[in-house]
Amino acid sequence: MSLDTVLARIDADLPQATERLLNLLRIPSISTDPAYKDNCQEAADWLVADLASLGAQVEKRPTPGHPMVVGHIGEGAPHLLFYGHYDVQPVDPLELWDRDPFDPQIEETDKGKVIRGRGASDDKGQLMTFVEACRAWIAENGSLPCKITFFFEGEEESGSPSLIPFMKDNAEELKSDIALICDTGMFGEETPAIVTMLRGLLGEEVTITGPSKDLHSGMYGGVAMNPIRVLAKVIAGLHDATGRITIPGFYDGVPELTDELKAQWDGLNFDAGSFLGEVGLGEPAGEKDRSALEMIWSRPTCEVNGIKGGYTGDGFKTVLPSKASAKISFRLVGQQDPHAIRENFREMVRAQIPEDCTVDFHGHGASPAGQMETGDPAFEAARTALSDEWPQPAAFIGCGGSIPIAGYFKTILGTDAMLIGFGKDDDQIHSPNEKYDLTSFHKGIRSWARILDALS
Amino acid sequence: MSLDTVLARIDADLPQATERLLNLLRIPSISTDPAYKDNCQEAADWLVADLASLGAQVEKRPTPGHPMVVGHIGEGAPHLLFYGHYDVQPVDPLELWDRDPFDPQIEETDKGKVIRGRGASDDKGQLMTFVEACRAWIAENGSLPCKITFFFEGEEESGSPSLIPFMKDNAEELKSDIALICDTGMFGEETPAIVTMLRGLLGEEVTITGPSKDLHSGMYGGVAMNPIRVLAKVIAGLHDATGRITIPGFYDGVPELTDELKAQWDGLNFDAGSFLGEVGLGEPAGEKDRSALEMIWSRPTCEVNGIKGGYTGDGFKTVLPSKASAKISFRLVGQQDPHAIRENFREMVRAQIPEDCTVDFHGHGASPAGQMETGDPAFEAARTALSDEWPQPAAFIGCGGSIPIAGYFKTILGTDAMLIGFGKDDDQIHSPNEKYDLTSFHKGIRSWARILDALS
Repeated sequence: MSLDTVLARIDADLPQATERLLNLLRIPSISTDPAYKDNCQEAADWLVADLASLGAQVEKRPTPGHPMVVGHIGEGAPHLLFYGHYDVQPVDPLELWDRDPFDPQIEETDKGKVIRGRGASDDKGQLMTFVEACRAWIAENGSLPCKITFFFEGEEESGSPSLIPFMKDNAEELKSDIALICDTGMFGEETPAIVTMLRGLLGEEVTITGPSKDLHSGMYGGVAMNPIRVLAKVIAGLHDATGRITIPGFYDGVPELTDELKAQWDGLNFDAGSFLGEVGLGEPAGEKDRSALEMIWSRPTCEVNGIKGGYTGDGFKTVLPSKASAKISFRLVGQQDPHAIRENFREMVRAQIPEDCTVDFHGHGASPAGQMETGDPAFEAARTALSDEWPQPAAFIGCGGSIPIAGYFKTILGTDAMLIGFGKDDDQIHSPNEKYDLTSFHKGIRSWARILDALS
Repeated sequence: MSLDTVLARIDADLPQATERLLNLLRIPSISTDPAYKDNCQEAADWLVADLASLGAQVEKRPTPGHPMVVGHIGEGAPHLLFYGHYDVQPVDPLELWDRDPFDPQIEETDKGKVIRGRGASDDKGQLMTFVEACRAWIAENGSLPCKITFFFEGEEESGSPSLIPFMKDNAEELKSDIALICDTGMFGEETPAIVTMLRGLLGEEVTITGPSKDLHSGMYGGVAMNPIRVLAKVIAGLHDATGRITIPGFYDGVPELTDELKAQWDGLNFDAGSFLGEVGLGEPAGEKDRSALEMIWSRPTCEVNGIKGGYTGDGFKTVLPSKASAKISFRLVGQQDPHAIRENFREMVRAQIPEDCTVDFHGHGASPAGQMETGDPAFEAARTALSDEWPQPAAFIGCGGSIPIAGYFKTILGTDAMLIGFGKDDDQIHSPNEKYDLTSFHKGIRSWARILDALS
C-alpha cells in the first residue's frame, strides 16, 4: 500500500464526497427540539447505510433519546474508535440566514469555496472527513490498515443524556486503544491543532414565579413583586466588578497554567483584538487579570444563554408578568465539580428569592473538564502527520467549548482520546450562516488518511 | 319623562344589549400588533353603524394609526362628551385561556354570570354601558336630555400616538362642558367609585447590543461581553434596597397625600392581604414605608413588562447572544415630568453600558398624571346618582392605571373629566380569561341613565 495513492484517490473523489455531505446536511437533525425527532432517526439511518456501503458491520442502536450509530470494520492493531455527532443546533433566528439552513450548497467567497448550511462544520462535515478517508483507503487497498469502530451520537447539542448509560452498557464493544474525536477546530488558517484541554459544561434553567398570573401593571404595579426584577438581580450578582464569578466555592479545583504551557500559548501569538474584532468587540470581557486565551481555554465562565419574561412581541403591553426564566451555563476547567457547583448555584439563587416568589430549577447536563495524556506517543505521531499535510506545524492547544465525551472515554472505557478537527473561527457554528471551508473538508480527509497511516 | 321607565327599559333590553356587546367582542381589535390593523377598522365600523342606528351624526375619522369614531346626538345643556376605546390588549399567553379570547360567551360562575372574552371589561363592555343607556333613553323619550358627543379611540392599549394631534385638530368639535370616561373600576363589589387621581405612564424599550452576531458560548464565553448580563445589571439597579427608584430626579414633583385624603383612604378599609392573596402574593413589594393603597394610587413605579435575549425555546442552546432587550414602564404621579424622567433614565442607562456594547432606546408614550377638579358640582351630582344605584355610597378614589386622555381633556380642550367605571379587581384585564360581570354591565347601564338624569 502507499499513502500517496490514497491521497490521490481523495483528491479525485472530492466532488462525490462533497455530494454525500450535502445529502447528510439536508436532514434537519436538531436534537434539542422534539419536533425534529424523526429527522434525527433519518440522519442515523443515512449514516448506517453509508457505513454499510464501506463494508462495516453497523447498526442504529436505540436509546431513550435519539439513537447511536455503532459500526465495526477492519482488523489488526491498533483498534481505533472514531467519534462524531450527527445532530445539529437549532437554526433561529432564521431571518438572519441568507439561505435555508437545510438546503446547503457550495458558495464562492473571498476566502475560497465554503459548504454553507446548518451542521456543515458542527459536526456533519467534520464527521464525514474521517468516513471519507476510510472510503478512499478501502478503495485503494481493499481494506483498512487496522480495526476501526465508528461511534456516532445524536444528542451532542442537547446535553448527551443517553451517552453515559450507553457507554456503560456497551463498554466491552467500545473499548479501544485510542479514540479519535473530530469536533474541534484549527488554531489558525494554516495551523492544525490537537486539543489537549477541554472545558466542561453545566447547564441550568431558572424559572422565577411571582404572581399566580400575569397582572395589569397599572392595577398591581408597585405593590406586586415582579419576577423579572428578581431574576435580573440574581443574574447581575453572578459576577463581581472584576469579572469573577461569585458562586461560593466556584473556583475550587481551578488550576493555574504551568509555566511551560503558558510559554507555549504565548508563542502562538494569539491576536485577541482581531479575534474579538471579527464579531464587533474590542475588549476581553472576563476576569481583569487574565489573557484572552486563558479566558477561552483555561478559565471557567458563567453565561446567560437566554432570558425571557412578560410581553416580548411588537409594541408595548403593560403587563406585570407571573414568570421570568433564564438559561444559564457554566464552562468548567481543571477539577471543578459540576455537581457541587450546581448545588452551590441553586443555594445562592434560593437565598435571593423574596418570600412572595418561588424558584424552580431544571438541570441541562453536567460534564467535567478534560485533560489529555499528551505523553502517549500516538499524540506525537498524529502531530507529525498533521504537520505534513498543512503549511504550519500542528499545535497542542486548549478549547473553550465542551466535548464531554473525551472525559467519558477515559473514565468509562479507560481509553485516551485525541481531539483533532478542521473547523475555523469564522465557521459561525451555533449561529446563522454556518459554513465549513471546502479546504477544511478536503485537507481534513487527507489529514485522517495520514493519521491512519501514522498510527497503524 | 321619567327615569323609572328608562331603567325598566334597560332591564327588559338586557339580553339584546348583551348580544350586541358579544358581537363587538368577536372583533380582534388588538391595536399594538400590526397584524390586526384591519380588525381595528372593523371595530370602528361596527361602532359607527351602531351609533348611526341611534340617530347620531357619526363618522370613522382617519388618523396615521387606527381611526377615531366621533358622533354627535341630542340638543341642550350640558354638552357631555363620552370617551371609551374599542382596541384591546394582545392575548398571549394564549395557552392560558380557557376559551378562544375572541369567541366570547356568558358563563355561570360562583359569583354570578360573567361575560368572558378579550375586551369584555377593558374597554368594550364599559364603553357599551353608556351607549346602551343612551339607546334606552331614546327608546323611552324619543331623544336624549342634552347634547352628547361620542369619542371612541382605537389606540389606547398602544400608547395613543394619534390622540393629541387629533384632539388639537378637532378641538372646537370636541369641546364640551364635561367629559365622561368609562375605563376604570368599582372600589369594591358593592361600592362604585369616581376616580379623581390617575397615574401617568412612560414606556421605554431598551435594546443592548454586544457582539455583532450570536456567538458560540464555548468559543467566546468568558471573553465576549454578554448583553443579557449588561441588561440584568441595568434592571437590577433601578430599585434600591428599600424599593425606591434610583433614577436621578425621579421623585421630583411627587406630592405627599393630604391628611384629609389619607383619612378618607384609611376609611375605605382596603384589605391589602386579600387584594394580593387573590394573585398568589402576600407582601406589598413597593417602597417599605408606604401603604399598599399608596403604592397603587399615589406612588410612582418602575416595572419591567417584558425581557428577552438569546435562546428561549425548548431545551438548551449554548449561544452567547448579540442582543438583549427589555420593555420598561413607569407609572407617574403628581407633577412628575415624563420627558425629564425619560431623559434621566436614558442617561443613567447609557452610563452603565460598557465600551463594547451599544444601547438603543425606543419610547412608547409619555403621559403625566391627572388630578380632577372635585369642587365642580357635577362630581357631587354624579356621586349621588351612583350611590342611588349601588348598595354602598360612591367613593372618590385614586387609580393605579394610566388614562392619559383625562389630562388631555383638561390641557387641550379645557374640559374637566369624570372617570366612572364598573370593572372589578378580578376582571383579569390584560391577562388571560378577561371577563366583565353581567352585573357590572347591567347596573353600569342603569348608572349612566341615572347620571344623565342628574347632570341634565
